[in-house]
Amino acid sequence: MDNERGFGFASEAVGVETMAAGGGALPRGFFWGAVKAGIKASGNPDLAVALAPQGATAAAMFTSNQVVAAPVTVGRRHLAATGGRVMAVLVNAGNANCATGEAGIEACQQTCVAAAETFQCIFDEVFPSSTGIIGVPFPAEKVIRAMPAMQDALGQTPDHAEAFARAIMTTDTRMKVARAVIDIDGTEVRIFGAAKGAGMIHPQLGAPTMPAHATMLVYLFTDVYAEASQLREIMPAAIEGSFNSISIDGDTSTNDTVLLLASGASGVRLTDRVSEAFDNALKLVCESLAHQIVDDGEGVGHVVTLHITGAATTADAKRVARAIAHSPLCKTAWSSADPNWGRLLAAAGYSGVAFKPERVTISIGGLQVFALGTRSPSFDKEAAHKAMTARKYTIAIDLGEGEAECRFLTCDLTEEYVRINADYST
Amino acid sequence: MDNERGFGFASEAVGVETMAAGGGALPRGFFWGAVKAGIKASGNPDLAVALAPQGATAAAMFTSNQVVAAPVTVGRRHLAATGGRVMAVLVNAGNANCATGEAGIEACQQTCVAAAETFQCIFDEVFPSSTGIIGVPFPAEKVIRAMPAMQDALGQTPDHAEAFARAIMTTDTRMKVARAVIDIDGTEVRIFGAAKGAGMIHPQLGAPTMPAHATMLVYLFTDVYAEASQLREIMPAAIEGSFNSISIDGDTSTNDTVLLLASGASGVRLTDRVSEAFDNALKLVCESLAHQIVDDGEGVGHVVTLHITGAATTADAKRVARAIAHSPLCKTAWSSADPNWGRLLAAAGYSGVAFKPERVTISIGGLQVFALGTRSPSFDKEAAHKAMTARKYTIAIDLGEGEAECRFLTCDLTEEYVRINADYST
Repeated sequence: MDNERGFGFASEAVGVETMAAGGGALPRGFFWGAVKAGIKASGNPDLAVALAPQGATAAAMFTSNQVVAAPVTVGRRHLAATGGRVMAVLVNAGNANCATGEAGIEACQQTCVAAAETFQCIFDEVFPSSTGIIGVPFPAEKVIRAMPAMQDALGQTPDHAEAFARAIMTTDTRMKVARAVIDIDGTEVRIFGAAKGAGMIHPQLGAPTMPAHATMLVYLFTDVYAEASQLREIMPAAIEGSFNSISIDGDTSTNDTVLLLASGASGVRLTDRVSEAFDNALKLVCESLAHQIVDDGEGVGHVVTLHITGAATTADAKRVARAIAHSPLCKTAWSSADPNWGRLLAAAGYSGVAFKPERVTISIGGLQVFALGTRSPSFDKEAAHKAMTARKYTIAIDLGEGEAECRFLTCDLTEEYVRINADYST
Repeated sequence: MDNERGFGFASEAVGVETMAAGGGALPRGFFWGAVKAGIKASGNPDLAVALAPQGATAAAMFTSNQVVAAPVTVGRRHLAATGGRVMAVLVNAGNANCATGEAGIEACQQTCVAAAETFQCIFDEVFPSSTGIIGVPFPAEKVIRAMPAMQDALGQTPDHAEAFARAIMTTDTRMKVARAVIDIDGTEVRIFGAAKGAGMIHPQLGAPTMPAHATMLVYLFTDVYAEASQLREIMPAAIEGSFNSISIDGDTSTNDTVLLLASGASGVRLTDRVSEAFDNALKLVCESLAHQIVDDGEGVGHVVTLHITGAATTADAKRVARAIAHSPLCKTAWSSADPNWGRLLAAAGYSGVAFKPERVTISIGGLQVFALGTRSPSFDKEAAHKAMTARKYTIAIDLGEGEAECRFLTCDLTEEYVRINADYST
């Protein structure tokens, strides 16, 4: 678990728990539920709703991809129209409603109308999301037909929240949830997050209100009382070190969305006094979810934390991390626990960041493998190989250029990944 | 063969032939040879020499990777010292002599000294190259010990040129050679090229004289009479549309090198009158070699030409092509002949190039699959799948933004690629 900590996680310390770790403590003011609408070929639940009957303030961050799925276009319009207010989140898995043209926009709007009628809110207060295959006409009628059943499925228990988290899964093998609770003068402020994503994962989320879409979908619920403008302000810092610092395959989706909803039901206002504790709790929830996404990545055998230090700037550090995280040669070497540090160095070398190899040091799992421009005197291939057989470990690279650093979470590339993705739409 | 033509090849038309296609017609003024020096674990020939006993003018282009192998550092110094003059090219496969520190530089220099003594030239007229594993101390003594045998191995027949081309192979399964002959007032000017490379292939060669290294090694021999400055001038145009327009895995090597040598032995000067024909012949040789490299890429099942049109600039077109060529999701879909155009569109969307999806059209193997922001009315999944079962086909994407275009050659990502690269250094 040392590496989770390395990525910034300290679940035990601050009350960030998975659902399995215990009941209760869900943010007040929300209902969750899921049903089978018949969109997933598997027949599993594929339509989820989160409802804030009293409404919630909202902020969202979307991928910077030029190609936008219909629900992203619609969701963005709705957030703009309401100034950041959401009553119902309507998510389906199995069809991304992306590259579906005007017909896709209309289909999405029809489902929002049906949800607004069912949950008695205005059309603009419905926030739609879709994930699944791209380019297949969206079956709006299946979503609409499922609305009555959805109304009956909603509830406030952990089971209801789990049902939401499970229904949004596609190639995920595990549900991804995280929670945090902070105590403000004796009142609990709660955060609950649910996420999905296992492939096409390299989120590059733009500033809140930017356009875009998602194969990574993240929903963050809290009962703190906050203006939408406050949510937009605190969101980027939590996202930068979590969802914007992971990559499974380097493919930035057309649908990546992180939605933060605040019901206000705790009665605690997000004042300056509260904000540090709240920001930290939000970060921990985001980091836990980001970690869960990589850990459940398609075909993943090893979760690798890249800790880049000694960079001239943080942007440089991230650029080096991304080059390594996207290098098929680095990733295939990790799959066989091969301490091939030459590939790490080569990928850093083509990242576009200037550095001198003779100043670089590289450690794998705490064992130095490269120093002073050549193989480390202490390089022990067997020991390094053994360290890399662990499910999780850290590769530390010091560039010797400055003081900036970053942590970036990624994974190996396996034959299983190729098998999964060679079969996707067939 | 239509797709080879699509990438700009027209072998039959202009006398560019593989060695197998017929004997003779090698450029005069060069000797080639290869021996077993014991560097490759396989025991195959692993040391090659090309000798220009009267000397040759020379220009080289290297990768822009920050990390430089010892022979690149040394080779660059030598070209600078001689002003672009080479007598002996000394290439080994099996060890890249990269990330080997000062000891690697010294080892490389020792081999150059031995070659200079053997071939009776000055030290600076030896151009060294290495390819193989990174970070393992370079066995200079094996190269030095092989020098006498190398002297005996040299010759001017196609068999000798083939021996050179085969000895430089690493994970290549096929020798890669191409030739062209042009007729200048009754005198033949000949070009012969030999290349190696199957993985870590995404050359981004900088301007001649820039620093760098190579897993792609290319040697171009001609008997035209040209100044080194002329060679430096004509080289970039030939490289841009060939070696700088291919990618197997997106990993830009630490050793990529293209060396162009002109012996002058034809007696034909590279004047303005001759240069158009010569430039075209050189381009065809480079395009043929580039195609052969991708066709023999590690685990490659399908060779895909990306023809990007309607871009605002050529740089935009290349950026879109590179994003698609490096997308694991696009590449895995190709491996199973899956006409998943949504992944193509998504990768174009995150390339950083601005475009409007509703103006984009996509065809696969000549069949339109996407138009006007959605699936093409004529999309026929079975037909598109069938077109993609071909070994070679073209994916054409029109961005609808301008007049610029590019062709970029790439390949699928297969389980075999993962297997090959998960095993490399073990």
